[in-house]
Amino acid sequence: MKKLINDPADVVSEALLGMAAAHPELRVDQQHKIIYRGGALKAGKVGLVSGGGSGHEPLHGGFVGLGMLDAACAGEVFTSPVPDQILRATRAVDAGAGVLHIVKNYAGDVMSFEIAAELAAESGLQVRSVLIADDVAVPNSRHAAGRRGVGLTVLVEKIAGAAAEQGRSLTEVAKVAGKVTAGGRSMGVALTSCTVPAVGRPTFELPDTNIEMGIGIHGEPGRRRLPLAPAAQVAEYLLDPILADLDFTGGPGVIAFVNGMGGTPLIELYLMYHEVTTILARAGVRLARSLVGSYLTSLEMAGCSVTLLRADHDLLQLWDAPVRTPALRWGV
Amino acid sequence: MKKLINDPADVVSEALLGMAAAHPELRVDQQHKIIYRGGALKAGKVGLVSGGGSGHEPLHGGFVGLGMLDAACAGEVFTSPVPDQILRATRAVDAGAGVLHIVKNYAGDVMSFEIAAELAAESGLQVRSVLIADDVAVPNSRHAAGRRGVGLTVLVEKIAGAAAEQGRSLTEVAKVAGKVTAGGRSMGVALTSCTVPAVGRPTFELPDTNIEMGIGIHGEPGRRRLPLAPAAQVAEYLLDPILADLDFTGGPGVIAFVNGMGGTPLIELYLMYHEVTTILARAGVRLARSLVGSYLTSLEMAGCSVTLLRADHDLLQLWDAPVRTPALRWGV
Repeated sequence: MKKLINDPADVVSEALLGMAAAHPELRVDQQHKIIYRGGALKAGKVGLVSGGGSGHEPLHGGFVGLGMLDAACAGEVFTSPVPDQILRATRAVDAGAGVLHIVKNYAGDVMSFEIAAELAAESGLQVRSVLIADDVAVPNSRHAAGRRGVGLTVLVEKIAGAAAEQGRSLTEVAKVAGKVTAGGRSMGVALTSCTVPAVGRPTFELPDTNIEMGIGIHGEPGRRRLPLAPAAQVAEYLLDPILADLDFTGGPGVIAFVNGMGGTPLIELYLMYHEVTTILARAGVRLARSLVGSYLTSLEMAGCSVTLLRADHDLLQLWDAPVRTPALRWGV
Repeated sequence: MKKLINDPADVVSEALLGMAAAHPELRVDQQHKIIYRGGALKAGKVGLVSGGGSGHEPLHGGFVGLGMLDAACAGEVFTSPVPDQILRATRAVDAGAGVLHIVKNYAGDVMSFEIAAELAAESGLQVRSVLIADDVAVPNSRHAAGRRGVGLTVLVEKIAGAAAEQGRSLTEVAKVAGKVTAGGRSMGVALTSCTVPAVGRPTFELPDTNIEMGIGIHGEPGRRRLPLAPAAQVAEYLLDPILADLDFTGGPGVIAFVNGMGGTPLIELYLMYHEVTTILARAGVRLARSLVGSYLTSLEMAGCSVTLLRADHDLLQLWDAPVRTPALRWGV
């Protein structure tokens, strides 16, 4: 295992110290591994809490700030945060308008957020949840009943965050988040495995001549292992199941997101984005907005995922709304 | 070679197509491989042109936009752009106040920019150049007489870009760029090699238990090969030569930049940044600003570099000034 780390047991807490130092505008609760938006709560704003295993940076902590999350709960690498941690974050960001939990569909995350939501409700807080299950690769998997939550998470956090910032009610913010989960689909490909620091060896073996189509963000198996292929072919492998699953034609178009898995350089992501635009043009799908970069990673895994979201005018104005977080920033 | 590419010969041009599609606010001259800031020139603003081999994305094209570069010339992977290309970009961004060339110290880049500057001068344009040579690792190298230009490039482009945006003269912008090059130092480490697409095999071999200290951004040899060490030790290996080379104490402090080489995930970069802050505190160096992320890469090389820049109040306000580019954006 070749990584820039000290003791594998300290990776998450030491990375949080680095985040705190690099982003003084955030408040990092080191003891409970929670990253908060700095400054006072905005009275009447719906609070947004997300979280999950570490190893997917900048998700979720890098999306805390104006126009996106109010708090992110970090678990150990590829390990769910615990209910107490989520409950603490939920209480801290409640500004009288309730709190939305943004949850990726993995058994551990779902359970922790459900328990936290119940405990919060018992103490009188209004909590709603949105479950993200956008991965078309496999119907069920090692860690999830139903589809896994992957790249769409970034878009849900951005769009729901903007809706909350605009002063919409908890019901309205949950509704817009639901519109994103209903209209978004993703699929990923791995060129290499990743290595969990505490394990010390690659999560899976992938021969030099193979790629894993439909990879999960923790290295869970995909739908099939194929010979390494040109990028144009890989883009088809990714988009065909997405386009078969939902009609993306019509309306103002899609938000297209090409995401790096951590070990793939930006030059390849731009190249893949070009292939995506070519396929979408052929399929009659209009491009409204795009995002290209490594925003939801799997440690140092090489590969990428593609996410498409059916947009409407409200989603687009929420997408365009100001955001100021470590990893996503525009308009302010 | 396992990459998301088609024909190795088309990597740069296809990635540029992707950049053009993802960033309609830029203007990409596909034929000449030049990325321009969109919109009309601002009369009387000094033009900023940089460029170099591709494979370092987001550098340089990702730094084109308000408050940073006006044009970036892309060579093939790890290959200098040609004089005609630079001349064309220089002419295109001249708005009557002259043009500054930002050049990393590699023989090919230096030669191409020098010829372009001479040709531009012959046709009556005012051109000044700033040479970046911040790498303390080795006094000379395979591709450079004198120190190599590495991570500091990002800081020069940001700060000179802000100075130009504020309406300073060519002499003044060149002077501020010179202040950055005089006050900045860098060093990098590689955990793995990278593979140039047209070559198809790793640039160098690095055993599983070794790291290369002082690596160049094209995989040029560093100062020594050492056993893999904990991050705290690696951070010392990087910072000791930097701190020995220039006095960074006093004043408002430093801008500290931890840069990923392409294949290292953000969680490790934040962890490394924590180690950097610990060493700087011990050395009595004050932290004024920071930047953590993969901004000047070497394809999919794993590793990182650390850059320190002695700041003063003018440099800090230029650093904080609004910037809107694909890879760096704040305040606007």
